[in-house]
Amino acid sequence: MFDQATMKLKVDPLIRMALEEDITSEDVSTNSVMPTATMGEVDLICKQDGILCGAQVFARVFTLLDESVKTEFYAQDGDAISKGQLIAKVRGDIRVLLSGERTALNYLQRMSGVATYTKSVAALLEGTKTKLLDTRKTTPNNRIFEKYSVRIGGGNNHRYNLSDGVLLKDNHIGAAGGVKEAVWMAKAYAPFVRKIEVEVETMDMVKEAVEAGAHIIMLDNMNHDQLKEAIAYIDGRAEVEVSGNVTKENIAKLTDLGVDYISSGALTHSAPILDLSLKNLHAV
Amino acid sequence: MFDQATMKLKVDPLIRMALEEDITSEDVSTNSVMPTATMGEVDLICKQDGILCGAQVFARVFTLLDESVKTEFYAQDGDAISKGQLIAKVRGDIRVLLSGERTALNYLQRMSGVATYTKSVAALLEGTKTKLLDTRKTTPNNRIFEKYSVRIGGGNNHRYNLSDGVLLKDNHIGAAGGVKEAVWMAKAYAPFVRKIEVEVETMDMVKEAVEAGAHIIMLDNMNHDQLKEAIAYIDGRAEVEVSGNVTKENIAKLTDLGVDYISSGALTHSAPILDLSLKNLHAV
Amino acid sequence: MFDQATMKLKVDPLIRMALEEDITSEDVSTNSVMPTATMGEVDLICKQDGILCGAQVFARVFTLLDESVKTEFYAQDGDAISKGQLIAKVRGDIRVLLSGERTALNYLQRMSGVATYTKSVAALLEGTKTKLLDTRKTTPNNRIFEKYSVRIGGGNNHRYNLSDGVLLKDNHIGAAGGVKEAVWMAKAYAPFVRKIEVEVETMDMVKEAVEAGAHIIMLDNMNHDQLKEAIAYIDGRAEVEVSGNVTKENIAKLTDLGVDYISSGALTHSAPILDLSLKNLHAV
Amino acid sequence: MFDQATMKLKVDPLIRMALEEDITSEDVSTNSVMPTATMGEVDLICKQDGILCGAQVFARVFTLLDESVKTEFYAQDGDAISKGQLIAKVRGDIRVLLSGERTALNYLQRMSGVATYTKSVAALLEGTKTKLLDTRKTTPNNRIFEKYSVRIGGGNNHRYNLSDGVLLKDNHIGAAGGVKEAVWMAKAYAPFVRKIEVEVETMDMVKEAVEAGAHIIMLDNMNHDQLKEAIAYIDGRAEVEVSGNVTKENIAKLTDLGVDYISSGALTHSAPILDLSLKNLHAV
Amino acid sequence: MFDQATMKLKVDPLIRMALEEDITSEDVSTNSVMPTATMGEVDLICKQDGILCGAQVFARVFTLLDESVKTEFYAQDGDAISKGQLIAKVRGDIRVLLSGERTALNYLQRMSGVATYTKSVAALLEGTKTKLLDTRKTTPNNRIFEKYSVRIGGGNNHRYNLSDGVLLKDNHIGAAGGVKEAVWMAKAYAPFVRKIEVEVETMDMVKEAVEAGAHIIMLDNMNHDQLKEAIAYIDGRAEVEVSGNVTKENIAKLTDLGVDYISSGALTHSAPILDLSLKNLHAV
Amino acid sequence: MFDQATMKLKVDPLIRMALEEDITSEDVSTNSVMPTATMGEVDLICKQDGILCGAQVFARVFTLLDESVKTEFYAQDGDAISKGQLIAKVRGDIRVLLSGERTALNYLQRMSGVATYTKSVAALLEGTKTKLLDTRKTTPNNRIFEKYSVRIGGGNNHRYNLSDGVLLKDNHIGAAGGVKEAVWMAKAYAPFVRKIEVEVETMDMVKEAVEAGAHIIMLDNMNHDQLKEAIAYIDGRAEVEVSGNVTKENIAKLTDLGVDYISSGALTHSAPILDLSLKNLHAV
Repeated sequence: MFDQATMKLKVDPLIRMALEEDITSEDVSTNSVMPTATMGEVDLICKQDGILCGAQVFARVFTLLDESVKTEFYAQDGDAISKGQLIAKVRGDIRVLLSGERTALNYLQRMSGVATYTKSVAALLEGTKTKLLDTRKTTPNNRIFEKYSVRIGGGNNHRYNLSDGVLLKDNHIGAAGGVKEAVWMAKAYAPFVRKIEVEVETMDMVKEAVEAGAHIIMLDNMNHDQLKEAIAYIDGRAEVEVSGNVTKENIAKLTDLGVDYISSGALTHSAPILDLSLKNLHAV
Repeated sequence: MFDQATMKLKVDPLIRMALEEDITSEDVSTNSVMPTATMGEVDLICKQDGILCGAQVFARVFTLLDESVKTEFYAQDGDAISKGQLIAKVRGDIRVLLSGERTALNYLQRMSGVATYTKSVAALLEGTKTKLLDTRKTTPNNRIFEKYSVRIGGGNNHRYNLSDGVLLKDNHIGAAGGVKEAVWMAKAYAPFVRKIEVEVETMDMVKEAVEAGAHIIMLDNMNHDQLKEAIAYIDGRAEVEVSGNVTKENIAKLTDLGVDYISSGALTHSAPILDLSLKNLHAV
Repeated sequence: MFDQATMKLKVDPLIRMALEEDITSEDVSTNSVMPTATMGEVDLICKQDGILCGAQVFARVFTLLDESVKTEFYAQDGDAISKGQLIAKVRGDIRVLLSGERTALNYLQRMSGVATYTKSVAALLEGTKTKLLDTRKTTPNNRIFEKYSVRIGGGNNHRYNLSDGVLLKDNHIGAAGGVKEAVWMAKAYAPFVRKIEVEVETMDMVKEAVEAGAHIIMLDNMNHDQLKEAIAYIDGRAEVEVSGNVTKENIAKLTDLGVDYISSGALTHSAPILDLSLKNLHAV
Repeated sequence: MFDQATMKLKVDPLIRMALEEDITSEDVSTNSVMPTATMGEVDLICKQDGILCGAQVFARVFTLLDESVKTEFYAQDGDAISKGQLIAKVRGDIRVLLSGERTALNYLQRMSGVATYTKSVAALLEGTKTKLLDTRKTTPNNRIFEKYSVRIGGGNNHRYNLSDGVLLKDNHIGAAGGVKEAVWMAKAYAPFVRKIEVEVETMDMVKEAVEAGAHIIMLDNMNHDQLKEAIAYIDGRAEVEVSGNVTKENIAKLTDLGVDYISSGALTHSAPILDLSLKNLHAV
Repeated sequence: MFDQATMKLKVDPLIRMALEEDITSEDVSTNSVMPTATMGEVDLICKQDGILCGAQVFARVFTLLDESVKTEFYAQDGDAISKGQLIAKVRGDIRVLLSGERTALNYLQRMSGVATYTKSVAALLEGTKTKLLDTRKTTPNNRIFEKYSVRIGGGNNHRYNLSDGVLLKDNHIGAAGGVKEAVWMAKAYAPFVRKIEVEVETMDMVKEAVEAGAHIIMLDNMNHDQLKEAIAYIDGRAEVEVSGNVTKENIAKLTDLGVDYISSGALTHSAPILDLSLKNLHAV
Repeated sequence: MFDQATMKLKVDPLIRMALEEDITSEDVSTNSVMPTATMGEVDLICKQDGILCGAQVFARVFTLLDESVKTEFYAQDGDAISKGQLIAKVRGDIRVLLSGERTALNYLQRMSGVATYTKSVAALLEGTKTKLLDTRKTTPNNRIFEKYSVRIGGGNNHRYNLSDGVLLKDNHIGAAGGVKEAVWMAKAYAPFVRKIEVEVETMDMVKEAVEAGAHIIMLDNMNHDQLKEAIAYIDGRAEVEVSGNVTKENIAKLTDLGVDYISSGALTHSAPILDLSLKNLHAV
């Protein structure tokens, strides 16, 4: 769950915007047939096996519209849920339930989708020391939800954004004049609480990175033999991350490397949604 | 392309927010190694066959950071592009190119992904009178981009949100006391420029909807025989939309129905991204 | 009344802005003489016969400043109220009552003014099939209040804005190359849930509009004979709206036409306020 | 004209909001028939005699959408304009002209309406020493436009809001325990650059106000004889403002009093709009 | 204390922004070790003698994050507090206490610092008729807090900003063509509830200012003899303010002048903070 | 200098807010005497020796009001400037120069003040390996300016906020159940690109921190002997930061320790402003 501070400061404004995207004057359909408040209840039903994620966000969509809406969940974030399962009951003014339904489901389906996909990829790394990482390839204005969903699915978060992590890529290295120079400049410039990560593509760059004292070395688009050689050379002097079009389909080839981290953009940019829906709305 | 008014009023604020999500104080990596502005150029390369979508948004990410950045596109929205193709060149302060890269690509990859997937589904309807529609199952705070991408991919837009279209579902019908009552109440309440659409599940409801003068009838989760019977009964007295878990895999079964519209949530909630990347950054 | 979702998403931000317009640092007069909270009560008195509109907005102004303020209304939106009548009692911290007074009245007086004027115009159409429509000639940043007030006064709403209704005027027709072309292009482009309305000025245009399948035809600035001829020609094949400087003074001439809709900008741009005031503030 | 700082900080955000009120996704009608930019020009025509006000705001609506739009005015704020007169030409992308038209006119018509009405009331005070004042009875979120229009029409501004002027009314006096106490408390509390104004209803209160050193005394709802007596008593020891349902109809009775100021809420809450329209749009 | 309206409209948004400055995604340290809510309590301890200021703001930081947090204060704004004194106890979810701690203290320390310094300067004017004034030399986006702290410390507020006070400086006088012209133009232009203040540097300017009827005359950077001569000349015909690098160190020289006001930018731009801290956090 | 992205996304909104704080409707004084634009020029003069900081922000205040204002600087951030020195010339509409003056100076004086004070403290560490760090004890809504000023003054930045650095304090340690547990939990929870810093007060805690693999150990409020012992024990196995009421007065005692970092809240919470002013405004 998000803590109170994160909810109030970061999550609520995004949910409110999402609601404003869906309601620019009023919910015409609902207001046509329900001129006044009527108490009702609706079931949240799982329509596809997967991992639940976003319960708190789902409930918040309704309470931001009307704080008297109550949502009772029978499963929580991280739980495996299965087709047909009753996940929650939402009770409140039926007009609010209808007006918030789509936005609440849009969040819940996507967050559960990311958690479900991450879980299935993380499962492939079980029994190894390797941790699964996400990237910054998130949907615009949904990063906080997607990074959270990765954690719920058993993955780990790489840096949150450009301001809180240092990752020196080829262009930074080029601008600095070399791996060594880039690492030194970053150590001099960045707040000292940051680790310095550098992305390398050849053994020469690996060597330079180790010598310069990089804290993390990202091996990008290397083949299996190159990866092995690089990891052997680094030999614990820096943490090692492997990246480059990692998906469920090709991750198996990496599990024997004993690498610290494998990062995959697909966790957030290619996870399909998990199907969930609201059913059995009735007055109470 | 978005027109000027839509860009200024609706698109720019979302892009700006996406940039703020990625830069909460500064791009530490870039500023570490490039203390001052340096002019450079970078190539946008296609890494996977598909339909380009979002060129204008991609370019705007950079100009919102620095209006002097120039992006020259060699393909435009709707064009088929192929792996290895040079799509555009971006020229400006290298620091700006690096700081905006991820946000620009996150938009372009997703928009192109939706357009590519939509195109492939729409292709299945070619030669029929049936049009492909999207839904409100869009990513929160990305609807304007995703609805646009559906159009570029050859689809059509259903209502934009709860305020600009009337769609009476089972719960509205229940609250009104019947299909007929719901349609009448909507005709009385909603601004008269709206068509009234009603979602039905049985032949009885179909009949009631036609009698009440619904402008559009959505046949939801009916099997092929039921659909045929319903369409025959309606016989042009209302427009007909078919919905219910429509994907590329199952749409073929619907092409012989002669229905006006088929809607598919998958266009926006399940389209994988199209891989594109920035390469060959160099000073100029 | 506005539903909860509309209040929270659309109305509250506007009220808050109106309060910020009136209080840029503090209410200096009130704070000069009342350094601490004192409970009090004040009466809302009607000073002119008319229709009440905006009770909920009036009360919200105070609760947005201090949620403990209670407003009890003795009449509701749509009720005829008369000079001297006690309309409501507001109870809370006197400082809040004084700081919110002007903003609350500014809303209530204007909304009641629009409802009162609309009611008087709608009365002239009683007994006919013709409905009274508003326009987009509303006060900037007050549309949601004015459109609501028109409904309370017995009028109907035309489209809410440029995004949720299609109305093809002379310039659109010119750009398209003719009435027919414009209607066709709009049918192809606009989300299919929209009706297509077209504004015409001659019988030739009327004929073209009917043939092109326009859903609504607006007869603009025609004289009585022309209107008759056009309506006879259309003969139910499209809905008909008459517009052009319609006011209480000249609407009588249109009542015999049997037209579906008459629209009047004056409902929102020329309605005088209804005088209401807060009296008898006293500590309790 | 508004100065640059006021435009950028206060006016632009309000215009932008007004545009967002009218365009929640796009201008569907215009985009249907004009897929790409086309240069055009349109005339702003006066349809009713009056005073022009709001030229700068009118032009800004278009440049906020597209900075390349040019508006050339042939009259300026404060000029008397007459029916049929060409007021301005606007040139730019026709789509922008159409999308901004209504918002631009809504501002211009209202501002010119207030200026026109104010001018007609101020004319009744010509030849006297009495100045005409507005009040805080303005339309929510339109105060900056309406107060400006009053000045253009020859009126003067009372305080802008609750934070920048002290006006002690009956309730403040009651809370303080008397006129004298209220004035003293305000002198002690309010920033010393404020004058202290007090509203009085009886001769006793007038006397107390003078003794307490009030800078301005507002005579509220007094009859002609009472006003005369009060003004004679005050005899220049404070500035004098007369208020209470002052309109064009009843102001004549006050012109012989030799009072400093007469304030009228009607200037901003009852002025009808001035009719202006855009005509002759054509490509160039 | 700030009244409810000021808190809701002006203070809350600034506190929320300050929290967002400190929490751009989440409080990583706290969330690492406290995955769920735990009730706790912490003491606010004074570490340096001074004047307390900002109790309400301090408490609000926590309730904006979680409205169930309770803060009990044992001293109030304006009280002298001393090293080691227990000032308040805060009770709530420990995660919220930790996440809000720094922002709450940053406000409280600065506000108490300004109040403490102001008190020490105001003490030097005790027994004289001279009042101590602040200026607009405040920290950007902190004016409302600093002006309040000056009042708590026994100072008075000069104008709040450029919009609510008229102060004609050398450049205004130059533009107008002289002191007299400037005063007249301001009397004609500014809302009549404003006093007109003019800044002068020579006896000639003093004379002109008095003749023109300036309400307040600011004597800027004059030496003691010049000040005496000016004050004698003015002789109560206008209020007199003395300004120009006034600090605790040099104010003594001004106390014998019998001037109405002395203004000092140092009150807000040079006051050191007062040291306060949160101690003894423990679960309850 | 701030890069373009940081300016546009983070700095501009704060400057705009600061201007809105100072101009809630208009600059009444300036508009009284200057009804139209007049080109002018003004000098920025240094009135006290120190380090210049904030040139870019100073200039931006004016261009945000009117992009045609030009500021030419004769010194840049980090330069030592001295009393009487001409620092810059600003040229543009005099009304804009006057309206922006105070806000521009408020920023420049504070930023230069922080840089000047930091420089003087950093000078005491010259010749040692110890770096000077700031803290999060910054002025609310001014952190980006103050952290930048510390760098310009020769200091280094500690973490920017609660989201981008991990610092485990006594309360986190208490919640986790010990230093070791806290460090482990943070390593498991926080994005792996973060270093883990832990604050300790005793030798036992120091030992535990080293064993747990903390990357940075903060020695808080230890005396000189304790510091020596701790640093000797750590012996390079973690970076070491010393904190606790560090000011210019007492820092000398720490220079012989050979510690990596010394942090001081005083850099941002106690630096006096540097006096600078605008002089010689004249028309051009």
